[in-house]
Amino acid sequence: MGFFMGNLDTVQKAQKINCNFKGKDILSLDQFSPEDLEILFSLTRKMKIMESKGKTSDILAKKMLTLIFYEPSSRTFGSFCAAIKKLGGQTVEIQNPTQVSSVAKGETLEDTIRVFEAYSDAIIIRHPIAGTAKAASDAAFFIPIINAGDGTGEHPTQALLDLFTIKEQFHALKNLTVLFAGDMLNGRTVHSVLRGLSLFKGNSVYLLSPPSLRLTRADFTMFSQRGLKLIEINHESQIPKEVHVWYWTRVQKERFSDLKEYEKLKNTFTVTKKLLEKYANKNMILMHPLPRVGEIDREVDKDPRALYFRSEIRNGMYTRMALLALVLGKIS
Amino acid sequence: MGFFMGNLDTVQKAQKINCNFKGKDILSLDQFSPEDLEILFSLTRKMKIMESKGKTSDILAKKMLTLIFYEPSSRTFGSFCAAIKKLGGQTVEIQNPTQVSSVAKGETLEDTIRVFEAYSDAIIIRHPIAGTAKAASDAAFFIPIINAGDGTGEHPTQALLDLFTIKEQFHALKNLTVLFAGDMLNGRTVHSVLRGLSLFKGNSVYLLSPPSLRLTRADFTMFSQRGLKLIEINHESQIPKEVHVWYWTRVQKERFSDLKEYEKLKNTFTVTKKLLEKYANKNMILMHPLPRVGEIDREVDKDPRALYFRSEIRNGMYTRMALLALVLGKIS
Amino acid sequence: MGFFMGNLDTVQKAQKINCNFKGKDILSLDQFSPEDLEILFSLTRKMKIMESKGKTSDILAKKMLTLIFYEPSSRTFGSFCAAIKKLGGQTVEIQNPTQVSSVAKGETLEDTIRVFEAYSDAIIIRHPIAGTAKAASDAAFFIPIINAGDGTGEHPTQALLDLFTIKEQFHALKNLTVLFAGDMLNGRTVHSVLRGLSLFKGNSVYLLSPPSLRLTRADFTMFSQRGLKLIEINHESQIPKEVHVWYWTRVQKERFSDLKEYEKLKNTFTVTKKLLEKYANKNMILMHPLPRVGEIDREVDKDPRALYFRSEIRNGMYTRMALLALVLGKIS
Repeated sequence: MGFFMGNLDTVQKAQKINCNFKGKDILSLDQFSPEDLEILFSLTRKMKIMESKGKTSDILAKKMLTLIFYEPSSRTFGSFCAAIKKLGGQTVEIQNPTQVSSVAKGETLEDTIRVFEAYSDAIIIRHPIAGTAKAASDAAFFIPIINAGDGTGEHPTQALLDLFTIKEQFHALKNLTVLFAGDMLNGRTVHSVLRGLSLFKGNSVYLLSPPSLRLTRADFTMFSQRGLKLIEINHESQIPKEVHVWYWTRVQKERFSDLKEYEKLKNTFTVTKKLLEKYANKNMILMHPLPRVGEIDREVDKDPRALYFRSEIRNGMYTRMALLALVLGKIS
Repeated sequence: MGFFMGNLDTVQKAQKINCNFKGKDILSLDQFSPEDLEILFSLTRKMKIMESKGKTSDILAKKMLTLIFYEPSSRTFGSFCAAIKKLGGQTVEIQNPTQVSSVAKGETLEDTIRVFEAYSDAIIIRHPIAGTAKAASDAAFFIPIINAGDGTGEHPTQALLDLFTIKEQFHALKNLTVLFAGDMLNGRTVHSVLRGLSLFKGNSVYLLSPPSLRLTRADFTMFSQRGLKLIEINHESQIPKEVHVWYWTRVQKERFSDLKEYEKLKNTFTVTKKLLEKYANKNMILMHPLPRVGEIDREVDKDPRALYFRSEIRNGMYTRMALLALVLGKIS
Repeated sequence: MGFFMGNLDTVQKAQKINCNFKGKDILSLDQFSPEDLEILFSLTRKMKIMESKGKTSDILAKKMLTLIFYEPSSRTFGSFCAAIKKLGGQTVEIQNPTQVSSVAKGETLEDTIRVFEAYSDAIIIRHPIAGTAKAASDAAFFIPIINAGDGTGEHPTQALLDLFTIKEQFHALKNLTVLFAGDMLNGRTVHSVLRGLSLFKGNSVYLLSPPSLRLTRADFTMFSQRGLKLIEINHESQIPKEVHVWYWTRVQKERFSDLKEYEKLKNTFTVTKKLLEKYANKNMILMHPLPRVGEIDREVDKDPRALYFRSEIRNGMYTRMALLALVLGKIS
């Protein structure tokens, strides 16, 4: 933990952190203030530098973290596992508890959470139904619940890594112009990143999606009232050159009941080399929460502005390391 | 391991432990003497105190424990994983080997056990068929097999945690009156706890179940001959006020071939606030091996006498820590 | 790591190792020279001695290894997990990603590999389709890929453990007569072991299989040109007494589209006590890659020449420990 003790400035921040992270549930982007994000991303940066120097921390030593994943997500699962273990923590790993557990015998979520909190220092939960992370948080008496994605609800750590990646590039989270493309309706990472951007001043957001996959009017109004300037567009030709970030998303098959509708919409907007040439500037960055299934051409992967493989995934691990360190660690 | 070396008394006990636990298979409650339980629960208590003081042990350091779970049980799985890792041990985790392994290719249990014993210091096995733990024990040449529940057979560590929880409350396991309710026929935890209670003098047991879910006559006779006073009852009104422990169980859907029969019987006996008020005394405790699916009302959870979330689950982890330390540890 | 520093001879070898193993993908037996195998098996031997003396190594400390298993294989999975953890490494464990992951959402193998390499020091991959390990290796930018078996392709670590087991017994891998029985067509371990034997001089190989499960003519020619003397036989009576190694294999149900054909062929050749008495010499060894499903009688297990449970499985763990230490360790 030596790396937390570099200077007084850090210690002061850490004292504030205690109020905002320590022992808290992490359910939604809404719970963070701009100062919280400052603290989190500062520690994320330290985690990244620490590893690049081959240094390690054991800030989660003797902590037992239970991962309960009710929904396929090897990527988020692996990222959390790696984050925990790199900080010396230990895991109890439960995948598909609806098949592999008491849940199969009819146990309620509430009971499951209470059982696992008896031998965990925190529970990281993934679930296909929006609101489940909150329900888990209500059920837990003693320990923090971390939302690793709940259906069309939120996926806060994904949004945090996205915000960190943007900040790393542009050194700020204000006065940015960001384009979101794909599924605005069901894309929970979009919702979470919008929440984050709305914390800072001067941000404009272009929303490019098929008409049937637009933000709900309620969400549109809510984000506008929070100060985001939202502009809905229908065609790539409407993307202004000055956009800083293209945030592309997958049209999510698993959210459609009508597969024909999905087939019709899935590749409405695709990033190609040509599209970048035509509408993107030289300093912009291209992001994607992954997995992708065709909405970004493979040839684009080599473009230095494409950060989904280059930065986002590793940043995800560092963001989760920082978050868990703040929630569970002995920082004081 | 410093905590094992407190006083001569402990060392003497440990020498005896070596005879009874070290290197032994743990298959059934029947293999324990009252002295064994004394030793085990004394160490369980130490494990609990140790953790409450923030101390740790690495008594399982460099031990590799393989968990092979052929049946859904995230709770027992998680409890064993946590117990092992908290003592510094390591795990090889195999869930659903009938899908995920050589078993899918037609390998026998015997061969599977011999394969895994080649790189394990112990195997913890869960299986839907009674007698499988014994079969695994017969197959293993060198290492201990721990039964984590085998169908309608036994689930010894569940029974041990139950007995520990009772002892923790009443400071003895003799001269108690215990009520079991639910499925006496298929409930393996009931059978295992009865085995444990029969080791001690003066215990009376009330058995409340639908007629079709009573103990077999063979089991009734066997437990009676071991010295338990068994009284079968049909209605809650027959529960005497002086009962120390209510041990409620789930009617297990997975043991029924006829689901109509299950639906008819599942909620015959339900613990409500009212029922407790009417028939339970102030010092009794309410236990349940979990999962529950409705046979204890949620409003009862807050009652301080309800120990299923409050004590049993954590006690399960400490009991397993103590057991594994005795079977595998370097206690001498 | 002290055990690597015994004498100058070892250090010299280690320097060569760096060229051939360090940071390299392990995809096929073909990539090894006789000298590579010398180095690997020398370290495997050290790993085995080290453990027998109760010593440990932390050569994989702070290394994160991701296991992605697309196909049932609890044995290989467990062996790799144990090998990694015994050397102080850490694991991210993904089983059945086609069900439990982004793959279920349509992600390509290439993208999956790039995601996991972002937080791994190596990826160990198992897949039902031949060539997948190579494809994974092409996708990975920075980290080594270890093939844990890809369909009818190769299973190099299985072959390495087999070759080590043979060498341990006969102190050389040349001038041997080896019998392979069972499925020569689909048996990837057979193919990999043949590759290994073809590196050394004077080896003769008898191939006993039903006509429909013989080596392809292309493979037959290729192995002959590499210097192996291959003799195809049809009946046990054609096994010469001087054979050093009987390498028996399972006829693999999962490779047949026509189950009737499988039923007809599965037990064409079975090892019994009688068969050994009649055709095997006293110093030969009987090997099997496991799982078996009837092609070796249980009564044979006790024969001291039967090494499948006695040596092969543990040797598998030691071989994998040595291999991972060479690929990832700080040996210099």
